[in-house]
Amino acid sequence: MFRPKSEQVVEFKCIRGGNGEAEMRHITDSNAELYDKGRMFNHAILAPGVSIGEHYHEGDNELFYFLSGTGVYNNNGTMVRVNPGDTAICSSGEKHSLVNDGTEPLEFIALILF
Amino acid sequence: MFRPKSEQVVEFKCIRGGNGEAEMRHITDSNAELYDKGRMFNHAILAPGVSIGEHYHEGDNELFYFLSGTGVYNNNGTMVRVNPGDTAICSSGEKHSLVNDGTEPLEFIALILF
Repeated sequence: MFRPKSEQVVEFKCIRGGNGEAEMRHITDSNAELYDKGRMFNHAILAPGVSIGEHYHEGDNELFYFLSGTGVYNNNGTMVRVNPGDTAICSSGEKHSLVNDGTEPLEFIALILF
Repeated sequence: MFRPKSEQVVEFKCIRGGNGEAEMRHITDSNAELYDKGRMFNHAILAPGVSIGEHYHEGDNELFYFLSGTGVYNNNGTMVRVNPGDTAICSSGEKHSLVNDGTEPLEFIALILF
């Protein structure tokens, strides 16, 4: 299967009560494209000031891989500065959140597996 | 879990008989980090001229999401030009390969789920 960027689904939405709307570019369009092992695989972009609100994961885990920009990631209660090339994983039973406190877009890959 | 880029495992290796060595930056270090649903989640970089040889997938699927550069992707026998924002999925029973025929590094996210 090949899907060009021109056919990519893009959503802008408030996530988990965060500030503003995140841009979510869908890398996959269905669970089947994730071999029925995941429910989300996105290229996410937070403009400066945009955030994802704190939330828990139960029965799945979410991985973030940072591509560009900077921000502050809440790693199950501990705040860490994130930069390109960093990985963050919120395992089942843990919580996380993220804010772009920089001046450039904060871009990352987000994957949820269950 | 948080892992900064400074602790990221990076390999350079010939893949499936392709030309040259691909740079594979490991986003995850274990199957457990992929909720035991996958075995590889990499930020891959092919320098100009580097390729991944043709191979089949059986019992898993591999997703590529292109970040930068350009190349030619063998989509189960059909050659397609790839650019940033494109998605390619090699499902179980299909084959694929990839070559950077451009002048810039070809960067993409690669994920194998089983």
